[in-house]
Amino acid sequence: MNVGGRHFRTIWLKPDDERVVQLIDQRFLPHRLVIEEVRAVQQMATAIREMHVRGAGLIGASAGYGMYLAAVEAGSRPATAGFDDHILSAATQLKATRPTAVNLSWAIERQLKSISNGKTAGEKVALALRTANLIADEDVEHCRMIGQHGLKLIREIAQKKAGKPVNVLTHCNAGWLAFVDYGSAAAPIYAAHDNGLPVHVWVAETRPRNQGSKLTAWELGEHGVPHTVIADSAAGHLMQRQEVDLVLVGTDRTTFSGDVANKIGTYLKALAAKDNNVPFYVALPSSSIDWKMRDGLKQIPIEQRGADEIKHVDGWLDGRQVEVRIAPEESPAANYGFDVTPRHLVTGLITERGVCEANEKSIRTLFPEHAP
Amino acid sequence: MNVGGRHFRTIWLKPDDERVVQLIDQRFLPHRLVIEEVRAVQQMATAIREMHVRGAGLIGASAGYGMYLAAVEAGSRPATAGFDDHILSAATQLKATRPTAVNLSWAIERQLKSISNGKTAGEKVALALRTANLIADEDVEHCRMIGQHGLKLIREIAQKKAGKPVNVLTHCNAGWLAFVDYGSAAAPIYAAHDNGLPVHVWVAETRPRNQGSKLTAWELGEHGVPHTVIADSAAGHLMQRQEVDLVLVGTDRTTFSGDVANKIGTYLKALAAKDNNVPFYVALPSSSIDWKMRDGLKQIPIEQRGADEIKHVDGWLDGRQVEVRIAPEESPAANYGFDVTPRHLVTGLITERGVCEANEKSIRTLFPEHAP
Repeated sequence: MNVGGRHFRTIWLKPDDERVVQLIDQRFLPHRLVIEEVRAVQQMATAIREMHVRGAGLIGASAGYGMYLAAVEAGSRPATAGFDDHILSAATQLKATRPTAVNLSWAIERQLKSISNGKTAGEKVALALRTANLIADEDVEHCRMIGQHGLKLIREIAQKKAGKPVNVLTHCNAGWLAFVDYGSAAAPIYAAHDNGLPVHVWVAETRPRNQGSKLTAWELGEHGVPHTVIADSAAGHLMQRQEVDLVLVGTDRTTFSGDVANKIGTYLKALAAKDNNVPFYVALPSSSIDWKMRDGLKQIPIEQRGADEIKHVDGWLDGRQVEVRIAPEESPAANYGFDVTPRHLVTGLITERGVCEANEKSIRTLFPEHAP
Repeated sequence: MNVGGRHFRTIWLKPDDERVVQLIDQRFLPHRLVIEEVRAVQQMATAIREMHVRGAGLIGASAGYGMYLAAVEAGSRPATAGFDDHILSAATQLKATRPTAVNLSWAIERQLKSISNGKTAGEKVALALRTANLIADEDVEHCRMIGQHGLKLIREIAQKKAGKPVNVLTHCNAGWLAFVDYGSAAAPIYAAHDNGLPVHVWVAETRPRNQGSKLTAWELGEHGVPHTVIADSAAGHLMQRQEVDLVLVGTDRTTFSGDVANKIGTYLKALAAKDNNVPFYVALPSSSIDWKMRDGLKQIPIEQRGADEIKHVDGWLDGRQVEVRIAPEESPAANYGFDVTPRHLVTGLITERGVCEANEKSIRTLFPEHAP
């Protein structure tokens, strides 16, 4: 989407040197737009591990380009013998960066398979490049389709609102910054905006890491979409006042039965949506569906992160980025990364193939190739 | 309660000079314990307006002592003629500090009535002192009784837990820092802890002003009560995991029918409590009951505060207190101070007279003098 009027993806090949990958280093947003040049697989591993890039789709694409950089490295060595060893070692290194990210290992496996089809080093490098581009382009296309399917929902609401903006509430960042372009939950919003429908987004700040106020607010603002940042706690009150027409969120993992794991706090917003008859939709590429899990509450592991993220806040002070402490030094803190929204609170899932209900039958109808 | 092993109230007369009021300036907590000496009614007005003191009970007590300081000022003037004028002007000044705080005008009216019973300046000053102390002492006694009634609830739960800690979740600060001592929601927790019952508190940080992580965590820590700070968004997940035995919150205003206005986010916690069969109690001195309002959602006005509180966070950096920006400078933000939890989500109210259900009949049975 647009930044300062210019179209960006989150990751791309450097125009004049395709041995270099460029990406937006998201750690500095919304304060500074920093473009990182990645020239080696080890550097890409660091970028993923230390969250210069984050989000399901973007992690997959970054891993794809990381494997391509590994192939370039292997190909430029004097002896061809070590090529495969270097590729396998790069795969291991990349997989270890974010062990829970499903898209990471999926992209790496895909690259290993693709590279193995090459006979010469040159062929292998060319295949790795093609596959890296393919992974990124497919991500873009899936998100674009999610946008088109979600656009219909927003258009239906807009028709009832007689020119008044459709108010969408979102949580965390499921925008283009979490993918290669468009985003999942944000895709229908961008599609509506770009099609001239009046849309306004309530951006929940998403403590503790503030992906809402830092990333979602930034990307919506840069693309020109009207939005308002709120505390996570304000979502229920806004719904009670009928100031929310639609809740749209992403997901880190959704079971084949429709239970949705997403950023901590999503469940509370789903409860409020149910209590106030506000439609609650989850937007996801089908790669986020876990075809092996039925019971989200019992089976999905919930990552616990460091207490520091709760007790400290990262922000901007006099032109520099600093961390301030907001709790007593002695107080313990607990930091749960995700929660599970049970399927009965979910109005529907918006996938690249269309919208379905959050239940096994409806999901399998859309994706028959995953029949048990 | 205790700070560093020593008992404190939030406001008191200076031991060796009773023309001086001392109070904890809460703006610097949890980083520094600052005691302010208040020597004039104008200074007290500033302390209330700029939130050196906050919380229903403490605002009332501060207004009471402010009126006493006004009487001292009036009494020390050469001519007795201006006494009443000064008192009335002080009352007007104090009332304007926090227009929505019910306890503020209540305490000022009580002082005006009391002072008017004195014949000489000396008598008036003595009456003002007596009433200021009385307002503070009554606040303490009401909170102590709330603690005793709430203690029974915690004891019942403790008996089922076979020695494991009772996990109480709270929101915002309804602790002793919001009153003169004990607090409302915190009073049963302190009573349980002081009676040797194992209790652990989940402290929701309470964005945007972080009264949970700043004030509640500090006061629980200083008194030695085990606690853990969490993001507001984590409350639902903890209840899904059965890690919460009881939700205890305070209230800014409760209708005679049992609808509860409290810090923004309370409603989401009540929804999660209902969804997971966790008892949800509201602790309040009866002065917080609005005997004129029936429908909380329709009638209780919700204060909107500045966007800066959403876009900035106040914290501690290298030994100084600073504010950092956490959202794009250009993004608008909305800041709703309170929300309303409808009565059907409230298990019960804990008052100084005992526990009742959140409905008109049960409330009026406990307070028959407020019959319509």
